[in-house]
Amino acid sequence: MKMGERVEWALHCCLNLAFLGPDDAVPAARLAAFHELPTAYLTKQLQALVRAGIAASVPGPRGGFRLARSPEQITLLDVVVAIEGPEYAFRCEEIRQRGPASGSSGRTQVACTIDVAMRKAELAWRQALAAQTLAEIAATVEHRYPNMPVRARDWLVVTGS
Amino acid sequence: MKMGERVEWALHCCLNLAFLGPDDAVPAARLAAFHELPTAYLTKQLQALVRAGIAASVPGPRGGFRLARSPEQITLLDVVVAIEGPEYAFRCEEIRQRGPASGSSGRTQVACTIDVAMRKAELAWRQALAAQTLAEIAATVEHRYPNMPVRARDWLVVTGS
Repeated sequence: MKMGERVEWALHCCLNLAFLGPDDAVPAARLAAFHELPTAYLTKQLQALVRAGIAASVPGPRGGFRLARSPEQITLLDVVVAIEGPEYAFRCEEIRQRGPASGSSGRTQVACTIDVAMRKAELAWRQALAAQTLAEIAATVEHRYPNMPVRARDWLVVTGS
Repeated sequence: MKMGERVEWALHCCLNLAFLGPDDAVPAARLAAFHELPTAYLTKQLQALVRAGIAASVPGPRGGFRLARSPEQITLLDVVVAIEGPEYAFRCEEIRQRGPASGSSGRTQVACTIDVAMRKAELAWRQALAAQTLAEIAATVEHRYPNMPVRARDWLVVTGS
């Protein structure tokens, strides 16, 4: 099972937009160039972030993308769900309902025990994603590389304007 | 992101083998028929379970597959890793090392903050999978459907012999 590389792209783009602050928007091509990503495919992910209310699209000559809410209000789960969708990774196809054991009395009314157990584990994963905000990630990066926010901002906005 | 249907197949087959006990082996075709699964493709998953030390292959006319260790010693994580592989779902491609920000001093020596955060969440998922054994799943199913173990055993072994 593999999460799409698009999730990594979206997370890094959100991080760069967090460094930028709420007042500046960056064109998709500029965001893509910052990590040498394909612009067209990245744009689709940025649009998914907009649909999820994480990013906003700003029209006009100085337009582009910015965060739609503060990094404190954006969790890793928000970004993962925006890109990968809300479905659980484990999807019960109810194979227990097929074959000779399918006629067990009342079996269709009660959730599959394996499905419940698998969802319980995925819930732990989601909770751990939801417990980490973009603001915390940005703070950790800034602590390690104090010049990174300024550097990202300068390149994304000043050089790109 | 979607986990393969093969995981559901493998989990249900392990559950049925748990009902069977350690003394009987079931041919792959019989296990497949119990949930109307394609035998050839299921056999590949059973072989993966054998390679992982979860199931054992018994040769001979009354041969087939059985669990290789007790259901108390088989966790959901064991089965998921046997089928899906040991890799994390989120795989950092180090896109931060590309583009204008890649030259940040010492950046290559320290793990990507986003990767660390994503792995932390996946670890919570893995821990929750590892905390649930096949024996517990079997006990829950038997509690709900007391005749299920006997029914599975009768169909898989007696009828099939």
